[in-house]
Formats: sequence, C-alpha cells, structure tokens
Amino acid sequence: MKFVAADTGGALLTEDYEPVGLIATAAVLVEKPYRTATLSAVRYADPFNYDMSGRQAVRDEAFLAVELAREVKPDVIHLDSTIGGIEVRKLDEPTIDALTITDRGKEVWKDLAKDLQPLAKKFWEETGIEIIAIGKWSVPVRIAEIYSGIYTAKWAIDYARENGKVMVGLPRYMKVEIKPGQIYGESLDPREGGLFGEIEADTDGIGWELYPNPLVRRYMVLEVWRE
Amino acid sequence: MKFVAADTGGALLTEDYEPVGLIATAAVLVEKPYRTATLSAVRYADPFNYDMSGRQAVRDEAFLAVELAREVKPDVIHLDSTIGGIEVRKLDEPTIDALTITDRGKEVWKDLAKDLQPLAKKFWEETGIEIIAIGKWSVPVRIAEIYSGIYTAKWAIDYARENGKVMVGLPRYMKVEIKPGQIYGESLDPREGGLFGEIEADTDGIGWELYPNPLVRRYMVLEVWRE
Amino acid sequence: MKFVAADTGGALLTEDYEPVGLIATAAVLVEKPYRTATLSAVRYADPFNYDMSGRQAVRDEAFLAVELAREVKPDVIHLDSTIGGIEVRKLDEPTIDALTITDRGKEVWKDLAKDLQPLAKKFWEETGIEIIAIGKWSVPVRIAEIYSGIYTAKWAIDYARENGKVMVGLPRYMKVEIKPGQIYGESLDPREGGLFGEIEADTDGIGWELYPNPLVRRYMVLEVWRE
Ligand SMILES: [Mg+2]
Ligand SMILES: [Mg+2]
Ligand SMILES: [Mg+2]
Repeated sequence: MKFVAADTGGALLTEDYEPVGLIATAAVLVEKPYRTATLSAVRYADPFNYDMSGRQAVRDEAFLAVELAREVKPDVIHLDSTIGGIEVRKLDEPTIDALTITDRGKEVWKDLAKDLQPLAKKFWEETGIEIIAIGKWSVPVRIAEIYSGIYTAKWAIDYARENGKVMVGLPRYMKVEIKPGQIYGESLDPREGGLFGEIEADTDGIGWELYPNPLVRRYMVLEVWRE
Repeated sequence: MKFVAADTGGALLTEDYEPVGLIATAAVLVEKPYRTATLSAVRYADPFNYDMSGRQAVRDEAFLAVELAREVKPDVIHLDSTIGGIEVRKLDEPTIDALTITDRGKEVWKDLAKDLQPLAKKFWEETGIEIIAIGKWSVPVRIAEIYSGIYTAKWAIDYARENGKVMVGLPRYMKVEIKPGQIYGESLDPREGGLFGEIEADTDGIGWELYPNPLVRRYMVLEVWRE
Repeated sequence: MKFVAADTGGALLTEDYEPVGLIATAAVLVEKPYRTATLSAVRYADPFNYDMSGRQAVRDEAFLAVELAREVKPDVIHLDSTIGGIEVRKLDEPTIDALTITDRGKEVWKDLAKDLQPLAKKFWEETGIEIIAIGKWSVPVRIAEIYSGIYTAKWAIDYARENGKVMVGLPRYMKVEIKPGQIYGESLDPREGGLFGEIEADTDGIGWELYPNPLVRRYMVLEVWRE
C-alpha cells in the first residue's frame, strides 16, 4: 500500500527550554516496508507567532498532505488526530458529537471540519482517495513526525547561520545527526521497528549538540551554532 | 521459582493488514533467570473461524497451561488477564462483581469462570498449584506471548508451503528471524530486560520479510512465501 | 541550567520477589548535557521498617535535596511528585484542593505540606531557589532514580558481606553492573536519550546476577552474594 501522511513538530525553545512555537509541518510518501519516506515535503510555520490550540497544525497538515497526494496518488491519507480512523469527508456535527473524545476535542474538530470536511470531500470525489484521522496508530504519521524533526534541524541550521545560534526541541523520542550535506533522523523507540529519515541540506560551517530536554523526559534538544 | 504461563497471539492478515483471526496459543515453562522458556507447547486455532470476543483465547490458555503444568509441576500458573493477580479458583459471582474492571470484563469473566473456576479448583486440590490472573505484570506471560509469535511464524511457514504465501501480524513489539532449522524471536522493548525464545522448525525453501505494520504502530508484519 | 533532584528507589525483596521496604534516597546535581549527575548524595532507609504510604519517601527526598542544594546552589530543585510543577512553598490547603489529583494524593500532600511548605519557603527566602513538584516529566528526577538504584546495589553489597546474600529490586527499567571499584547503572529505555550514573564502591569478593523480576515486568532483580 501507498500512504501519504503529515504531522507537525519541532519547537523553538527559550534558554530555559520553554517552547515558543512550532516549526515544521512535514508530509511524506510511505511505501512498503514502511520504515522511511520515499518522498517528503515541508511547510515552515513562524514559531514566533504560532497558534498553539492545535487547530493550525492539523489544518496545515491536511492541506500539505493533499498537495503531496495530488502528485503521488496514494491509497489513503493519514492525519495525526486520533479519532478512530474516521474519514474526514464524513465529519459533520452529529458525527463529531458521537465521537468518544473530550468536549474540547469536539469543539476543535467542529471548527476544523469547516475547512477540512469540504477539502476531503472534494479530494475524494476527484480521486477516490480518503483522508482518515488515525493519529497515533499510524506508522506513516510517525514517519511524518520524524521528518518534521529533521526539517526542524534544517530550519535551525538556517536560523543559526543568520542569527548565530538557536535551540530547538525535537518531536518525542527521536534524535538527529547533522552530517556533511545531509541530516539524518531516527526514532529512539526500538519497539517501532526501525523508523528513520534523511534529507539533503547544506550543513557547512555549523556546530551542533543533542541532549535530553531536562524538563520533558523522552524529548531531545538540538542546539545549533555558526562556527 | 518455576512458572507456567500461557498467552495467545499472532493474527492472519489480509492484504490490507486487517486481522482475520488469531493463530497460536503458547504455554511456557519459565525458570530463573526468567528470560526465555525451558519448555514450550502450542495449540493452533483456526484463524478463518475465530471468536474475537476474548473468551476463546483465555479458555484455550488455561487448558493448555494446566496440561503443561501437570507435566512440569510449577510453583504457580500465570494467565494473561489483568485482574489483580487473583486466584482463578476463587472467582465466584460476588468476587467478580467486586473486581475493579469494566462491566464488559465482568461479563466475560462470569462466562469464563463457568469452565475455569472448576478447572482451577480441581487442579489446586490435586496439586496445590494456583492459577492466577496477573496479565500484563507477569514476565512469564510476556514470554508466552513471544512464543505465540514464534509459533505463528511456524504456522505461516507451513501455510506458505501449501498455499504459496501468507501475511501474519506478530504480537506487540517483537520480531522473529527464520534461520536454518530454527525460528528465533525476541522482544523489541529493551526495558523488559532481554526476553527471547527459539524453537526448531523446518525452514527449507522459504522466503520471508519482516516490517512494521503501517496501521498499528509497534506491531510487526511477517510475510512468508514458498521459494 | 543547574538542577538538584531527589528520588527514592530500590527495594529489599523476599525469596518470592515481594517488596519488604525501600532502600535508598538519592539526591543529584545535574548539569548540561543532563545525562548523568556531577555530584550525588545518598541517605539509606531501613527497609525492614519502612512506611510504604509514600510520605516518608517525598519527605526524605526534600530534606536531602535541600542539603545538597545548600552546597551547590542550583537554579531549581525537582521533587518526584507529579503535581504540575507547582512550587512547594505555595502549597497551602486551598491550593492542594485545587490540584487535579486523586483525593488520596491530596490527603498525602496536606500531610506532607506541614513540613515541606515551611522548608521550601525558608529555603526560597534564603537563596531564591524554588522547589517544584514536577515528578515524571523531569530528567533530573529520573537521574536521581537511577542513582537510587546504584546506591541500592551498594547497600546490597554491604548487606551481603555481612549476611551472606541478598535480593533487591531496582527502580523501573534500569540495570546495574558491579565492576572492580565501581558500580555503573543506566536506563534501559533508549527513548530517555542515554541516562546513566556511576559511583565508586568496594566491590571485592562479591558475586552478583541481574535478571527480570518475574512478577513485575520491566523491573530488574539484583542478587548479590559473598564469594
Ligand atoms: Mg501532531
Ligand atoms: Mg493475551
Ligand atoms: Mg519516587
């Protein structure tokens, strides 16, 4: 099977490891054996001006995933929202009310559905491809999360080149390595069966260090500086 | 201490990674240092005709565990049902009603207890060995789960020999390796301290591939085919 | 940033792997890159006479952490109680009632606050250093937990020298290695990013074995004996 999935991750951090805003939405094409992406795309947010309610992330993810899916024609699109794998084109008010999620989650989805339900319906009518909200069960979503961390490292390199230095927080239990001409990332959870990713990037003249975020167990901090 | 434990796992999958039914109930004898089994037994189910309510699995496990325990005389038998480590011979209606589990779980256990309470009582009277429902806390139960995955790989080899090819899903975060004359399996969770298993099997003329199930994070798929 | 944290762990076990009482409270100084302690201190409890209600542990931890903090002047002190990172000096009755924790947790904290709120207030007035109850989110607390396991191994060596042999349970998913002149310990969870610790100890004439606790998945047992 061919999957397209999207997720948002990576946060700009203050000197005290407090998150300022999110950095990267990544969409990925994932094919058998489902351990990495065969294609990826990114859209950067402005972490200095970020809506942390969760609405911006899912909306960005849906639009970026559809953009990639138009190109690569997957069997299905996976979004990072854990509401039982329901098809997004079917998310009308009564359906959202019937979901077994929190009242706050229902409010967020009623708001989101205004944009995403028509998007999903139109895309399905044109292509037959469903967008489903499967969230944490999906391996393609986790691979998208790893790519969001890899692209966050790329953003950090560019930011450090301009501003001297920067600290970013990676998505949950993953690490990155900045190598000559490329950025490699992988899951730190061996139970996931070896998920990883890699992108090309100009990494010249950059120093970096990776270490555990002392305030958020199982999350790593990446520091990048101009050398 | 000497433990006997049993668990059921491994699922026949469709081409779309949907489970059809469970495959193998394994019972194991586990002795110090509690990392693998010193003896194992299997009973195969018919995955094409499987009761997914959870009753069939626990019942099969109890009977297979007692069969092995008659032979090896353990100190205690562990079943994979997390209801506080209670002795199964004591499970009458008022005791089940007092458990802090879901109403659905109580219904399942009231039904199960009809067969298993007398089995446990008789076995205890004859041997002094208790059967306890300890579930996820038990390392012997996890070793039984790993063996159910290893026997699932054996079933897949036999099925592929007859039918050309097959896809099965392994129990949670474990992998298998099909080697000449044997099947090896191990936990992918290093927090468990190195749990593994091995059985002998005719593995000639068989090809195989292991990869993450894209729809169920932390579960692996095994494909086996006739070469 | 510089952190001081404290935690209690390690349990004396019976031959049947049942816990008798806790063994070691460790306080640690943790500095960037936050993977181990640059300084540690221990206070041993009497496991044969231990209050398992959770009060003794947190109280011992707070006093030992303050003692170490007076010496090393950290930016903040982390305690192993997961109540949202609240400052302990602010824990009066209405604040405790407003916490989103169990009623039992509120009772424990109302009792604890009698000693710890004045301790925290006085220490903050003298030094400007806050004591916060951050618990499971804190990496320094996890490092303190790993040191409590390492000091538990040291206690077991001393106990075995006097009494011949002993079995202890380590804190969650960690292992220890007894080497010539030192005890090394590390997390078994790679998602934590490589947390470890080491202390010097007289390890002559001692045999040991480490294996999974069969009754508590993801916890290891250490046996130590006089050779
Ligand atoms: Mg997300
Ligand atoms: Mg089971
Ligand atoms: Mg603790």
